[in-house]
Amino acid sequence: MSELRQDIATKRWVIVSKERAKRPHQFLKQVVVQEEPDHRDDCPFCEGNEMQTPPELYAFRNGSEPNRPGWKVRVVPNKFAALSPAAKWEIKRPEIFTTINGYGSHEVIIETPQHNLTLATLPQEQVDLVLQAVLQRMRTLAQDHRIAFVQVFRNHGAAAGTSLVHPHSQLIATPIVPTNVREEIEEARRFYDDRVTCVYCYMLEKEMESGERIVLSTEHYVVLAPFASRFPFELMILPRRHSASFALEVKAEEVTSLAEVMRRTLLLLYRAVNNPDYNAVLHTAPLRDSCMDYYHWHIEIVPRLTTPAGFELGSGIYITTAIPEETASYLREQAQQLGI
Amino acid sequence: MSELRQDIATKRWVIVSKERAKRPHQFLKQVVVQEEPDHRDDCPFCEGNEMQTPPELYAFRNGSEPNRPGWKVRVVPNKFAALSPAAKWEIKRPEIFTTINGYGSHEVIIETPQHNLTLATLPQEQVDLVLQAVLQRMRTLAQDHRIAFVQVFRNHGAAAGTSLVHPHSQLIATPIVPTNVREEIEEARRFYDDRVTCVYCYMLEKEMESGERIVLSTEHYVVLAPFASRFPFELMILPRRHSASFALEVKAEEVTSLAEVMRRTLLLLYRAVNNPDYNAVLHTAPLRDSCMDYYHWHIEIVPRLTTPAGFELGSGIYITTAIPEETASYLREQAQQLGI
Repeated sequence: MSELRQDIATKRWVIVSKERAKRPHQFLKQVVVQEEPDHRDDCPFCEGNEMQTPPELYAFRNGSEPNRPGWKVRVVPNKFAALSPAAKWEIKRPEIFTTINGYGSHEVIIETPQHNLTLATLPQEQVDLVLQAVLQRMRTLAQDHRIAFVQVFRNHGAAAGTSLVHPHSQLIATPIVPTNVREEIEEARRFYDDRVTCVYCYMLEKEMESGERIVLSTEHYVVLAPFASRFPFELMILPRRHSASFALEVKAEEVTSLAEVMRRTLLLLYRAVNNPDYNAVLHTAPLRDSCMDYYHWHIEIVPRLTTPAGFELGSGIYITTAIPEETASYLREQAQQLGI
Repeated sequence: MSELRQDIATKRWVIVSKERAKRPHQFLKQVVVQEEPDHRDDCPFCEGNEMQTPPELYAFRNGSEPNRPGWKVRVVPNKFAALSPAAKWEIKRPEIFTTINGYGSHEVIIETPQHNLTLATLPQEQVDLVLQAVLQRMRTLAQDHRIAFVQVFRNHGAAAGTSLVHPHSQLIATPIVPTNVREEIEEARRFYDDRVTCVYCYMLEKEMESGERIVLSTEHYVVLAPFASRFPFELMILPRRHSASFALEVKAEEVTSLAEVMRRTLLLLYRAVNNPDYNAVLHTAPLRDSCMDYYHWHIEIVPRLTTPAGFELGSGIYITTAIPEETASYLREQAQQLGI
């Protein structure tokens, strides 16, 4: 029999369709050997092709010149930017059709000069540099009072909406707080009003007590399959220490520790689920609301093994055929077997 | 330069990315000739295979026996139902993990015995029968006080989440009001509180005044490309007469007229956009809130020509590369040329 489950933090419902439930291994992507070289002359993110991107905003270099070879991580504006700092910040509010000029920033974090790796297979020091670069850019963008929010995300594979193979993350800095962010924070505030505790801290405590949805846990982080997962193999990386803003509150040792847990989590998906296409999304507080008692930054990783359809679009209720407790148990076993 | 646009009804933002904007014809799907026969022995929805589905709930028949050949439209439970009326209605509310048993109904409306047609290419009388069947099922389900909402939707093509070719729509009756529905209604209520008018009536008036996003208009309906479209070629079918609940308030002549405008709109996409995969979703009031002054039922049609990625998942802001005014203008011209 199916079951509707409600996410305590967002109040979002899902349907766990036990009628058509599949066992974890049934979701595994067919292995397609993608032979990519470690360098491509026609890839704008490969070393030596620095002039094919807009000028870099930030980079880790060993004394080399900007926009030249000799770097570890580069941050560049997206060539086809959705938003741009060159736009005027201007809101038009006629009687009905409200618009804002496309002020903001859309940046690409090129994670390595090497074409055929991914975050899961990079050395941990390199993942650490990627996070340092992201943090640096977020802190710089936070100084612009016209920026309300920075959305950091990673699209891996065609089903996750990317066509570029070369490993990269992106960020988009927006002049408004996005609706989803506002709603997530609003729900967290309501919970806090009722119980005087952060809903994510509360969830973490209950999940640790039960243990059945925990996948990995480290000194600073817990990785779990959410009770109301929308997608098969959906995972959440939750910091143990309460803080609302990744950009403004994370500590140096927490960044290093996040690099470790990110790499391990993605490697686990890579190895145990055959390199699925996925989106990873940082959920963090808006830049001007950073000291909140009721919000708690985290990362959501959403493999794209199924296609949301009309029911999901209309209702916002996701039907999933994976049972989160089975997913977690499968991944725990695989982590042990694979030594991850 | 890009532009952020806000939808007046839902307050949802989109980014119209003019930097990478494409002209309407650039979205056209490559024409792939899919030679499907008009009957397949292995299709559970084809005539003669009635025993391959669960027993029918409703059908238009010319005196023939149920679950036998000789029908025009059949409604059957989904074989792999997400929700079922056989489940007990039971809510479990422990301290944190709220669940409801999978009570509800998940039904398939088989739109024709013929395997290789679609709603766009069916005769209008047949589309009319499909809508009659949907309405009939919604009204029957409305009598069950345990059902809070009926979501009606149609998935066309693999990118829209269906693998079954045989033309069909679906409905899922849920024991809760879905989050998206609640939020849409809540925003409409706020608008009504401020202006004492329905936001959809207001939008209709302003869109008719401007005319630049109108695609088709008939006696009872207007089809438009929403100002804040999330997807290329997204369309909205809006009834001219204010009413909140399709199931409980639609009049007989409005159903017939809807069949006409649905068929024309889908035929226009079929011919002018090369049969794109799409989701169509009925937005209507929850069953127990049917007499509202502030909500207005409508249909959203969302072609799936692009893949939402991490940014959309995290923020809820869609980036689109199609300019709604150009889409509408292109479709108006095509409608005239094709005589639709």
